[in-house]
Amino acid sequence: MASETLIRFGILGCAEIARKFSRAITMVPTATLYAVGSRSLEKAKAFASANNFPPNAKVYGSYEEVLEDPDVDAVYVPLPTSLHKKWAVLAAQKKKHILLEKPVGLNVAEFDAILEACESNGVQIMDGTMWVHHPRTAAMKEFISDADRFGQLKSVHTIFSFAGDDDFLKNDIRVKPDLDGLGALGDAGWYCTRGILWAANYELPKTVTALPGAVLNEAGVILSCGSSLQWADGKVATFQCSFLSHLTMDITAIGTKGTLHLNDFIIPFQAKEAHFSLASKSGFNELVTGWEPTPSKQIVMTDLPQEAQMVREFSRLVGEIKKGSKPETKWPTISRKTQLVLDAVKVSIKNGFQPVEL
Amino acid sequence: MASETLIRFGILGCAEIARKFSRAITMVPTATLYAVGSRSLEKAKAFASANNFPPNAKVYGSYEEVLEDPDVDAVYVPLPTSLHKKWAVLAAQKKKHILLEKPVGLNVAEFDAILEACESNGVQIMDGTMWVHHPRTAAMKEFISDADRFGQLKSVHTIFSFAGDDDFLKNDIRVKPDLDGLGALGDAGWYCTRGILWAANYELPKTVTALPGAVLNEAGVILSCGSSLQWADGKVATFQCSFLSHLTMDITAIGTKGTLHLNDFIIPFQAKEAHFSLASKSGFNELVTGWEPTPSKQIVMTDLPQEAQMVREFSRLVGEIKKGSKPETKWPTISRKTQLVLDAVKVSIKNGFQPVEL
Repeated sequence: MASETLIRFGILGCAEIARKFSRAITMVPTATLYAVGSRSLEKAKAFASANNFPPNAKVYGSYEEVLEDPDVDAVYVPLPTSLHKKWAVLAAQKKKHILLEKPVGLNVAEFDAILEACESNGVQIMDGTMWVHHPRTAAMKEFISDADRFGQLKSVHTIFSFAGDDDFLKNDIRVKPDLDGLGALGDAGWYCTRGILWAANYELPKTVTALPGAVLNEAGVILSCGSSLQWADGKVATFQCSFLSHLTMDITAIGTKGTLHLNDFIIPFQAKEAHFSLASKSGFNELVTGWEPTPSKQIVMTDLPQEAQMVREFSRLVGEIKKGSKPETKWPTISRKTQLVLDAVKVSIKNGFQPVEL
Repeated sequence: MASETLIRFGILGCAEIARKFSRAITMVPTATLYAVGSRSLEKAKAFASANNFPPNAKVYGSYEEVLEDPDVDAVYVPLPTSLHKKWAVLAAQKKKHILLEKPVGLNVAEFDAILEACESNGVQIMDGTMWVHHPRTAAMKEFISDADRFGQLKSVHTIFSFAGDDDFLKNDIRVKPDLDGLGALGDAGWYCTRGILWAANYELPKTVTALPGAVLNEAGVILSCGSSLQWADGKVATFQCSFLSHLTMDITAIGTKGTLHLNDFIIPFQAKEAHFSLASKSGFNELVTGWEPTPSKQIVMTDLPQEAQMVREFSRLVGEIKKGSKPETKWPTISRKTQLVLDAVKVSIKNGFQPVEL
């Protein structure tokens, strides 16, 4: 590890998800928990001691102090979406590399302001979508990129729902218009959209059409919605995201010659052993009473959970920048595309489920 | 078996699917292969001898002769859809009970003519959707009807696709406007729609909206399409059907407390041992790095394959009618609802993917 740079992370706020992220940092030898800041110093202290921060870690009673600390290399920003623009822009101006939770903004214009700040300050930005860093995702990509086994991608279908309880549906920041105004679309729909774009090699669809039946709360925040997407080459996709249905996280990608299935694409059922199912060139037996071949289950083991894989990759990029490389544009590019699709779904819902051209 | 009536089947035509159906009849003690008719006597003879018809079975060179045979109790009609109305109406007029392949007509008006003939002649009609007769289907229904384990149904998503080869896409009756004018919608989409209605306790949706991206051949026959459905109570559904994508047959039903998954709902991977996956009250572990509980795999064994289960149930109903009962209206009712939804999808595609109220 001697040749690698140790990346010192500062965390803005004590969100629930920051606990998982903090643990991930402790698993990555090239990253360290260096600082945490909260509007409440007491909360920051409690967070640091509950999450295995080293004894010499800095604990601040504000986000500003984290950004002012010259030894912080990178910040993790799990704040409510409505605060992303302000704090990510400030972080970039302070030359901090940024791991930004999703959705990256309330709309793509906000993210563009963040991107501009990152670009002009030469800092790396990556969003907090963990599943794309799982080695299973690479194995699935290998399958759906295989012209012989999978053929040409024809359709992708994703679902992410979980049933928020009464407290969630009343009080969670994700149902508050002034905090996470995109609701289920920004939270669960973010992953659905990313899954679709991932399968489509991040090619943007031509048209996005929200599906009739979206459910909004009294404040106008989306609690459940779906969308249909289509591409110029004939590919189509659908997704369904909801705070009102049982936990489900499916991706199904269908090519001309193969099908990929998995039911835990965002959070694997288990951290170390992940599965997916693939079928290739399946047909029926002679009397159409069974399949030949039947789908096969693939197993992918991983030493590090996906959130630590994300931290490792982000830290690697920051380390490269410290050695003179430029920021990796792939990550903000796919963040921006994901946000663009979410924006289009929102517009389509507002327009009575009419198609929106991208 | 002494108290049960042996139902004598006549088959109209020698379609591929009739081979599977003939084998099913040989597996059911209450049914017998009694006659087959084809426009070609030679074809009918070859079919009878290749499909284990008894030596005394009747072999006819026309469909009419099957209908005229007074000893035929019931007919199986696997003819192209455009011929359903003519031959099903004639069969009913000859007091033959009818097992009719799907789609039941080119539109619901055709099926209504068939229904009228069946009602006025007191004959049973059932469509050839086999999977609903599998004992697995009953086990799945038990789960999604369970208010405690599954809760209230919120969404259903079905897919049925298979990749027709060049010959299929050029010559199969399912791509010919004068034979099976509904194309992939009538063939694959029939099962998708039935799966959705089955999950929704056969309650018709309020609105049906075809998804942008439908693919039609030069003759205007649908090769691939999708649809969104919504109900007054907020339930939603989507389906995707296609002749252009790899073999996939998924149903996902999501309730407030549970999720049902299976990937072979129409033709089980294997005839005797069928699976499905259910999850109930799943959440995440403390750090959101895994699920608790994870979905569980259910296994349903069956002595008879689903097509024979269908023949057995149909024969039971015919036997009851012979003993004085009235025809069972459940089966034509669900056939008609399925056709109604298909008709609405077709109208929506023609209207530029606008919603169609049912």
